[in-house]
Amino acid sequence: MEELVGLREGSSGPVPLQELWGPCPRIRRGIRGGLEWLKQKLFRVGEDWYFLMTLGVLMALISYAMNFAIARVVRAHKWLYREIGDSHLLRYLSWTVYPVALLSFSSGFSQSITPFSGGSGIPELKTILSGVVLEDYLDIKNFGAKVVGLSCTLATGSTIFLGKVGPFVHLSVMIAAYLGRVRTRTIGEPQNKSKQNEMLVAAAAVGVATVFAAPFSGVLFSVEVMSSHFSVWDYWRGFFAATCGAFMFRLLAVFNSEQETITSLYKTSFRVDVPFDLPEIFFFVALGAICGILSCAYLFCQRTFLGFVKTNRFTSKLLATSKPLYSALAALVLASITYPPGVGRFLASRLSMSEHLDSLFDNNSWALMSRNSSPPWPTELDPQNLWFEWHHPRFTIFGTLAFFLVMKFWMLILATTIPIPAGYFLPIFVYGAAIGRLLGEALSVAFPEGIVSGGVVNPIMPGGYALAGAAAFSGAVTHTISTALLAFELTGQIVHALPVLMAVLAANAIAQSCQPSFYDGTIIVKKLPFLPWIRGRKIGSHPVTVEHFMNRSLTTLAKDTPLQEVVKVVTSTDVAEYPLVEST
Amino acid sequence: MEELVGLREGSSGPVPLQELWGPCPRIRRGIRGGLEWLKQKLFRVGEDWYFLMTLGVLMALISYAMNFAIARVVRAHKWLYREIGDSHLLRYLSWTVYPVALLSFSSGFSQSITPFSGGSGIPELKTILSGVVLEDYLDIKNFGAKVVGLSCTLATGSTIFLGKVGPFVHLSVMIAAYLGRVRTRTIGEPQNKSKQNEMLVAAAAVGVATVFAAPFSGVLFSVEVMSSHFSVWDYWRGFFAATCGAFMFRLLAVFNSEQETITSLYKTSFRVDVPFDLPEIFFFVALGAICGILSCAYLFCQRTFLGFVKTNRFTSKLLATSKPLYSALAALVLASITYPPGVGRFLASRLSMSEHLDSLFDNNSWALMSRNSSPPWPTELDPQNLWFEWHHPRFTIFGTLAFFLVMKFWMLILATTIPIPAGYFLPIFVYGAAIGRLLGEALSVAFPEGIVSGGVVNPIMPGGYALAGAAAFSGAVTHTISTALLAFELTGQIVHALPVLMAVLAANAIAQSCQPSFYDGTIIVKKLPFLPWIRGRKIGSHPVTVEHFMNRSLTTLAKDTPLQEVVKVVTSTDVAEYPLVEST
Repeated sequence: MEELVGLREGSSGPVPLQELWGPCPRIRRGIRGGLEWLKQKLFRVGEDWYFLMTLGVLMALISYAMNFAIARVVRAHKWLYREIGDSHLLRYLSWTVYPVALLSFSSGFSQSITPFSGGSGIPELKTILSGVVLEDYLDIKNFGAKVVGLSCTLATGSTIFLGKVGPFVHLSVMIAAYLGRVRTRTIGEPQNKSKQNEMLVAAAAVGVATVFAAPFSGVLFSVEVMSSHFSVWDYWRGFFAATCGAFMFRLLAVFNSEQETITSLYKTSFRVDVPFDLPEIFFFVALGAICGILSCAYLFCQRTFLGFVKTNRFTSKLLATSKPLYSALAALVLASITYPPGVGRFLASRLSMSEHLDSLFDNNSWALMSRNSSPPWPTELDPQNLWFEWHHPRFTIFGTLAFFLVMKFWMLILATTIPIPAGYFLPIFVYGAAIGRLLGEALSVAFPEGIVSGGVVNPIMPGGYALAGAAAFSGAVTHTISTALLAFELTGQIVHALPVLMAVLAANAIAQSCQPSFYDGTIIVKKLPFLPWIRGRKIGSHPVTVEHFMNRSLTTLAKDTPLQEVVKVVTSTDVAEYPLVEST
Repeated sequence: MEELVGLREGSSGPVPLQELWGPCPRIRRGIRGGLEWLKQKLFRVGEDWYFLMTLGVLMALISYAMNFAIARVVRAHKWLYREIGDSHLLRYLSWTVYPVALLSFSSGFSQSITPFSGGSGIPELKTILSGVVLEDYLDIKNFGAKVVGLSCTLATGSTIFLGKVGPFVHLSVMIAAYLGRVRTRTIGEPQNKSKQNEMLVAAAAVGVATVFAAPFSGVLFSVEVMSSHFSVWDYWRGFFAATCGAFMFRLLAVFNSEQETITSLYKTSFRVDVPFDLPEIFFFVALGAICGILSCAYLFCQRTFLGFVKTNRFTSKLLATSKPLYSALAALVLASITYPPGVGRFLASRLSMSEHLDSLFDNNSWALMSRNSSPPWPTELDPQNLWFEWHHPRFTIFGTLAFFLVMKFWMLILATTIPIPAGYFLPIFVYGAAIGRLLGEALSVAFPEGIVSGGVVNPIMPGGYALAGAAAFSGAVTHTISTALLAFELTGQIVHALPVLMAVLAANAIAQSCQPSFYDGTIIVKKLPFLPWIRGRKIGSHPVTVEHFMNRSLTTLAKDTPLQEVVKVVTSTDVAEYPLVEST
């Protein structure tokens, strides 16, 4: 049946009779218009936002699920180690076999599926965002390999001492690229390079935010690490996606009754009214300088050793033919050293990495607490007094912390050469916290009453130094400042804002003027294509223009040049290439 | 006497004999080389850093000195008001004459020196950074006018209710431009536009940081407000300068015994373990949405009223001929309303702006505290119980807060039309805090036991809502996200990280899709040259290239075209301009 239509004043086309004659046509039209406007408004706001939200929620789910599974595996390992009896051989085997098996599987599995799954992935992403096309690097088929490999790596706990951030950034970017392709295919929109890159930057922020539940530093860290220029628009996109991710990630923790409400990961309880005396600022800056110098040493050794492993005849052959074997050997070395009744006793190796951070950020001074009564080494880990792990009656706190720093220095470098999916940020962060803790404990012994200013006694909090050290060392190694913000977001307190920021700036000033960042160093060793970024702009460099390098006298060859002339031209200059032109 | 020289193996030129024969030539050469390297290194790092440090320290000194002077003037006003006796007329006069005199002087003095000193200056800076040259806007001669004018404005306290941030950004940029010119003249380096702009961006960060002692949000806020793209290099520069400024600013406060150590400006003491129950997240997001809607109303009314004042015959004539009179009239209106024994009683007008913030961020629920015992209105301000100012036995807290919101809405808009140097950020921030407080108090009455989840009772903290409201409203009005970070840096706590960020995002989503930001609005009303920034990039907009707009068939005129032909060409098309070419 054909619909009957009529004409209405002011209307551009025919209108169905039903509508023309229905009651209150104006109001109905108004409501319809309003709904249409709302729909358009929502859709306009929506477009990318839906996409970003999906990405954030998805990554949070993955991150949480991975944490959940890893916690189970780690608990099983601890149970095995505890229940296996008192025989040293059995205990040693139960301690070492687990990480060796996990790491060789991680290496074998991920490398057999795709060679791109190793390492953190951030150096490669940096290369991609600088405009180089790395084929297949963002392919979704890497995803499974990276997830499984990373889970195995993380399940080894503090034995191998590796983190999660870098691979998560890679995973997040992979998913974003995949979702982008799906969307392109669904809406039939043509592929667009610039739009794709915008999404990748936002995805990198999501990666950091879903690991640390820290949206601010997630966005800033990914910007600092990945790009040299960026648009404020991308930054808002990143904030939105990172907030969705961080919220979902923490919501799941509440949902699983791990926490009562949404809070930060490593809560601290520093004194708020007078968190530090004014003269302590000097020590904070000095700590920053120490972290800067140590980071230079670390970066140099790491790069050199990575190059050595790649060029040495034995190791390069091992890495080329049997990666799992190399991983197993490295894991055996690392696990043997961390065996708790052995050397691991002095490395607090029974603590997981997050327990390391929890204990190092403790606001009481261990040195002062252990001065009066020396606690025994507990046979079991005491969750209420994690710091007992750092204490040794004869070695004292200082001995353990210094030993930890010396040993972890080369152990970390060794761990970075293993071809597995793993992040290198968290270990650096913990290492920095240990540096800061050592200085803080020393100061608390030197000034047991606190540095008195104004008559009130405020004892020194070594935890504050640990916080500054973590931010400064990780900032120096990665050449970023946002690690300061990360330290605050992780601990839920921002009372040390200025001292931590000053320490990070001091550390960065030293590190940036002496060494390329961790990621740039990896790019150099891996020989990835990359435009080096000129950091130190000299005063004289501003008026230099391209004109100064340009060659104005070009030697060209015309299409119809006879052979003799060509030979003459080619032999007359020493350039290797000649433009071929239509006519000279 | 000529110096004797000799030759040495491996040396390129002649060497003084003294050196050649001195003891340990190698070591001495090594040390000399080392020193030379250190000097170069320091100088290379130094270049801009010295400049930025000077800028930060200078601005901190100015900011502190200004605060110091203003505090004295405000104290004198308070003393006068207190001591003048009980006559209502005298008290009223002592309350109103002060701001009227100060404001008309501020307006007259600053406008007579330079017309560029009015307003906040941020819209003009935005225009300058987008590439437009505004002659003399950054001239140092504006400096004195702006400093004196701003001091007078701020000395009126909460009567006029204006802030300091915008003008400080302008002052900082002026000093940076001046220092840059001095440096250029001293080293004889040629002027360089891009380098100059880099410095201006850093200077803007210093401006924010020295007002709020908040380096992180200083950098991010200035980036978000000023630019659409920026380089990570500028961002580091900004951090360095802002940290120097913030540190110096707070150091001066410690030096003058105002504080014991370096801490944040408006310290809060929110509960750390469970700062909010999970379901409260909904209320935080709802608060963000409310702030977003209110900010749209505010932005619309402010822009409309500003336009009205500029076009209305009476006010435009008044503003053109006698600015001090207009300022005096507006000040009289505002001061009369805030007269404490009158309407000001319901506006908490005896509080200064920072006391407003201090009281609104209070973590106790006033509604619950006043339920049992209703405190009387104290005749003097009670520094320990600032919240008494917000309480009225019959009106209750809710009445006062709602009245405050309604009145300040148009009072703020009126205040923004006065042609004086003044910032508009802090009032917005306080206004937002009041919105949040109102919702928070309502919730604390609705759920006096807290929203129980998990069996433990955690009473609702209205201060947290005030924090979120402040960040969300100021973020929505200025179209920035970094206000969330500012809220944390100002209060020294970051326990509400996710809820505040979500409120800010919700508020921004609404405000950005409906209204231009406060600064863009001012640019539009002031008719400054400005490239509008396309915010909502539609899906379909990506494949659009310049080709779609380009006109390929050009009508040109040759130099030697005879008159007849020119006439023919000109009459044949309807374009207004023709390219003149050598030959067609």
